Amino acid sequence: MKILYSNDKNFDIEFDKLINRSNLDMQNVMGIVTNIIEDIKKRGDEALNEQIAKFDHWEVKSNLAITRCEMKNAYDSISDELKESLQVAFERIKRYHEKQLEKTWLSFEDDGSILGQKITAVDRAGLYIPGGKAAYPSSLLMNAVPAIVAGVKDIVVCTPAVGCEVNELLLAAMHLLGINEAYKVGGASAVGAMAYGTKTIKKVDVITGPGNIFVATAKKLVFGDVNIDMIAGPSEIGVIADNSANPHHIAIDLLSQAEHDEIASSFLVTFDADFANKVKDEIYNLLPTLSRQNIARASIENKSAIIVAKDMDESIELMNALAVEHLEIATDNAFDFLPRIKHAGAIFLGHFTPEAIGDYLAGPNHTLPTGGSARFFSPLGVGNFMKKSSIISMNKASIDRLGRDCMNLAKAEGLGAHELSVKVRYEN
Amino acid sequence: MKILYSNDKNFDIEFDKLINRSNLDMQNVMGIVTNIIEDIKKRGDEALNEQIAKFDHWEVKSNLAITRCEMKNAYDSISDELKESLQVAFERIKRYHEKQLEKTWLSFEDDGSILGQKITAVDRAGLYIPGGKAAYPSSLLMNAVPAIVAGVKDIVVCTPAVGCEVNELLLAAMHLLGINEAYKVGGASAVGAMAYGTKTIKKVDVITGPGNIFVATAKKLVFGDVNIDMIAGPSEIGVIADNSANPHHIAIDLLSQAEHDEIASSFLVTFDADFANKVKDEIYNLLPTLSRQNIARASIENKSAIIVAKDMDESIELMNALAVEHLEIATDNAFDFLPRIKHAGAIFLGHFTPEAIGDYLAGPNHTLPTGGSARFFSPLGVGNFMKKSSIISMNKASIDRLGRDCMNLAKAEGLGAHELSVKVRYEN
Repeated sequence: MKILYSNDKNFDIEFDKLINRSNLDMQNVMGIVTNIIEDIKKRGDEALNEQIAKFDHWEVKSNLAITRCEMKNAYDSISDELKESLQVAFERIKRYHEKQLEKTWLSFEDDGSILGQKITAVDRAGLYIPGGKAAYPSSLLMNAVPAIVAGVKDIVVCTPAVGCEVNELLLAAMHLLGINEAYKVGGASAVGAMAYGTKTIKKVDVITGPGNIFVATAKKLVFGDVNIDMIAGPSEIGVIADNSANPHHIAIDLLSQAEHDEIASSFLVTFDADFANKVKDEIYNLLPTLSRQNIARASIENKSAIIVAKDMDESIELMNALAVEHLEIATDNAFDFLPRIKHAGAIFLGHFTPEAIGDYLAGPNHTLPTGGSARFFSPLGVGNFMKKSSIISMNKASIDRLGRDCMNLAKAEGLGAHELSVKVRYEN
Repeated sequence: MKILYSNDKNFDIEFDKLINRSNLDMQNVMGIVTNIIEDIKKRGDEALNEQIAKFDHWEVKSNLAITRCEMKNAYDSISDELKESLQVAFERIKRYHEKQLEKTWLSFEDDGSILGQKITAVDRAGLYIPGGKAAYPSSLLMNAVPAIVAGVKDIVVCTPAVGCEVNELLLAAMHLLGINEAYKVGGASAVGAMAYGTKTIKKVDVITGPGNIFVATAKKLVFGDVNIDMIAGPSEIGVIADNSANPHHIAIDLLSQAEHDEIASSFLVTFDADFANKVKDEIYNLLPTLSRQNIARASIENKSAIIVAKDMDESIELMNALAVEHLEIATDNAFDFLPRIKHAGAIFLGHFTPEAIGDYLAGPNHTLPTGGSARFFSPLGVGNFMKKSSIISMNKASIDRLGRDCMNLAKAEGLGAHELSVKVRYEN
């Protein structure tokens, strides 16, 4: 694992590479994904079934639907302890997201006009949950709960079923959440079907959820025809730590991100060179003990870095420039630094807040902006499943007060009918 | 202008065409726009200047920047009355948008954990304002004010300058708003430059603003590398009216949308066939009197419709299905129907609320979702210029309470380092 020193003369060049780490290369898959989606638009279920046979290796005979019975059976089959843990996670995530719920508001103006915003749930949301090697029930919780809290009437889940098999724990989580509609279909096919609708899968309004480059590209292509949450790349963590932190703990936290994916990134920024080396040693001691050591090792070697900064100020500055998905501040009095953190998907404060607690049940969403997009994207939340309508109500008094200015502006823009529409009320 | 009757046997087919009116055909321009953007990525200003010479027909000699002096001179040249009207609009739009401002929040949990969201402005926003035949200072106000209210530090405006000329009123509005940075560049070139940066135009985090099919396509292509507001198509209005409305006024309101663009749409839904015919007659009487009659006539003939429904319930149902950008409810007691309006960009209530008042100075934004996307998109607002970071802070007590459940879930997902990161704190 490389260690970069901010006082090194080549530091800026090396650090720029880390800033520009986002490289979702969609160009290579754009053609394939476009064809998949266009074919679904044209031939609906027929195309969908062919794609499933080709990519997921099973023949769709009756239909794609996952029954409530399958979900119930899966739930019954898991241990009581795991049921309990899923329930705890569900409740905590729900409670946190309820705090995000925005309400319709009205404002009564002096001139007699009433202004406001009507805030309502979308009618139908599609959640994409990956299958195969990364079938995570926590992803379902994190996508479904905000939609449930928003009050979305129709929630539909799509997940790939390689060989027609769906992960048991994912099915169990569907039961726990009360999912009524789910289909065995993955990748760009699922996104295309949810965006444009087939006979089996009705068109949705919003698509959220993680996925590989095919899913990300499909989401980008359908954006505008439906809304999407964000375009996410490989997962990543940044840790700011000083020597008040336990190097063993920090090494594990860095590895917990690295074990996700060969192309995940872990960054440690510290101003203590000795601490930096201790963490590095711990990482290499720990690596052979991990069940997913090959994945973690690839991430640590190729996509990760330890950075030794001048001081805490510079550490924060560098971390803001990285704008990471998950940011741990592993220092005493971590809250003191919160005002200066500008860009991060989620901020984990203090020595007792490992990033993993946020993946499962702290409450906040684990669907977070990656690759530096925390500069402008937000965590998945209730707002992703709602939309707003402006409310405007004028009366004669408000038109009398505002009409002249409105007509002046319409006239200046050369829009005669706009001007006239105010004039006829103004003079009425 | 066609009149459709909901009890007609072919109504569903005809109405479906109106629902599926959105036809931003990006395929035709995708290649051109991709080349423009890729060239800017590769060659920066050099590409940009060539594109300006080609599309806007002027040679970039010194640089693209619009000076503060140009803005000031333009402002000084407009009438005092127009200055006053711009000021009124600015203040009202500002006051409304200030009500949208979300604040950072924290929540203190029973288990000792602290959860919340840090909500901050993006660093740098790019506003695209069209030029040429549709150079509207109101567009600048509606895009800049939410960014100003959000607290965006760097606001940059791009607008095309055909023959190097920028609309005076637009320059004046820049002065009023205190815009510090603006460039004479339009279309996909402006979007590409703002998204990826050149030597002259620094990369932004968010791009908002209206535009033609090239701009819309460019925004879609850069989405993910920056955030964008929405992908907007031609403007549209839907009016629900009964015979308490003045047919002359309603005809003008429909025409005020039609005068925007040959492909703009105006829909009237009423359950009074006699009223429907009166409005139609008024439209044809008014058309010859309009300064933009050719544009308005094309929109009315080809893209608009009057629909006669069975009753008010069906009128609302049909309007929800259309999910229009602007919706007027021109009835007595219009507020009574607000609960049942599900999808609309902005809702204008009662006989004294012409849509045009919302275009200029009612307060709410005039940048609204079109083509049915009000089902899932929201008006442009302060939130488009802000982003959120989750906050999580645990202590020993909260880890003791939650650690076991978190480890159970991490284990079930096969993520060993995740489990371990909690375990070392749990047992500490």
